Amino acid sequence: MAGLFISFEGPEGAGKTTVLQEITDRLRAQGQDVVMTREPGGIPIAEKIREVILDSNHDAMDSKTEALLYAAARRQHLVEKIIPALEQGKIVLCDRFIDSSLAYQGFARELGIENVLAINLFAIEQYMPDCTIFFDVPPEVGLARIWKDKDRERNRLDLEKMDFHKRVYKGYQEVMRLDSERIQVVDAQQTPAQVVENVWRIVSSEVNIHKDS
Amino acid sequence: MAGLFISFEGPEGAGKTTVLQEITDRLRAQGQDVVMTREPGGIPIAEKIREVILDSNHDAMDSKTEALLYAAARRQHLVEKIIPALEQGKIVLCDRFIDSSLAYQGFARELGIENVLAINLFAIEQYMPDCTIFFDVPPEVGLARIWKDKDRERNRLDLEKMDFHKRVYKGYQEVMRLDSERIQVVDAQQTPAQVVENVWRIVSSEVNIHKDS
Repeated sequence: MAGLFISFEGPEGAGKTTVLQEITDRLRAQGQDVVMTREPGGIPIAEKIREVILDSNHDAMDSKTEALLYAAARRQHLVEKIIPALEQGKIVLCDRFIDSSLAYQGFARELGIENVLAINLFAIEQYMPDCTIFFDVPPEVGLARIWKDKDRERNRLDLEKMDFHKRVYKGYQEVMRLDSERIQVVDAQQTPAQVVENVWRIVSSEVNIHKDS
Repeated sequence: MAGLFISFEGPEGAGKTTVLQEITDRLRAQGQDVVMTREPGGIPIAEKIREVILDSNHDAMDSKTEALLYAAARRQHLVEKIIPALEQGKIVLCDRFIDSSLAYQGFARELGIENVLAINLFAIEQYMPDCTIFFDVPPEVGLARIWKDKDRERNRLDLEKMDFHKRVYKGYQEVMRLDSERIQVVDAQQTPAQVVENVWRIVSSEVNIHKDS
């Protein structure tokens, strides 16, 4: 049987990483074979591409160049890590996937969700996640969590960032409107324990549906 | 007035580089402002992307990853070098552009010309070359030119290469069939002097048409 592919999405500070680890532990305790990953996922070619994207000397980078590079890194991570795991029947939990590009590059960077979807469909082909869980937290709350421990004034860049993250959040809303069947929403403003329970309910249900299919 | 954008295409060993230099010299002698370039064109971000593509450790690279990386490097070279030159009204002569990806990745690597065209149109938008000159030389002849000075036996890799270059050549034929109005063919089996004259006739004509438009 082919594996099950679930992606996790949401703005910064939504708490995905902690929850993902807990879900992975629970699935493994059930004896499930789980691959928990995130791009570039330790794939050398994808790591190299990521370095080009994040290099702080590259402030001349055009948004479309960036979107193409993300799609390239995604492709390589998919081919080398996700597809082999799915072909072995494993459960793949991926922290961010195509929807991040749609929300960040497509909407927030104004390249157009449809345009960024098209180059990403070239990259991922039929490997759209079976299910995607969106961690819903307003950008103000998410960023406040990240900033919490940092004892500093908000500067111009932080404010710009806030504006950008608001656009990312709006982008996610738009992406969910376009693909409401695949994407399930979890209120990430609840306590961590509550978020884990909600996510667990969705993941368990997907695993059961998948087992029976 | 916006500039004029001409690309030069053809299989390996077609002699593009030498001819391009001669054409550039002639245009400059006429007082034309010419930018002669080739990807990655000295653009640091595009150079970095090129390094990822050509890194010999990256033999796990998927064809679609490669196609996306070429499109990314093309985008950055276009944005940083070609568009500014065109906006200053210059003549841009570019050694290889979109058609190389269509012939190499789209046809020879079997990704599909239409698919590779789509991601490249995302990258180049309206900046399709005004005119493209194809240096027509059968792959056997082109490769023989490259191999000429190398005193060695043909090995398995060389033969594979020949097969690949035959597919590239077929790919170019297909690309020309799809966009016959933009692409003009020059017989590159003639003497270098004859090739220069044929190319010069096409370029001069384009420059005149462009001046009058």
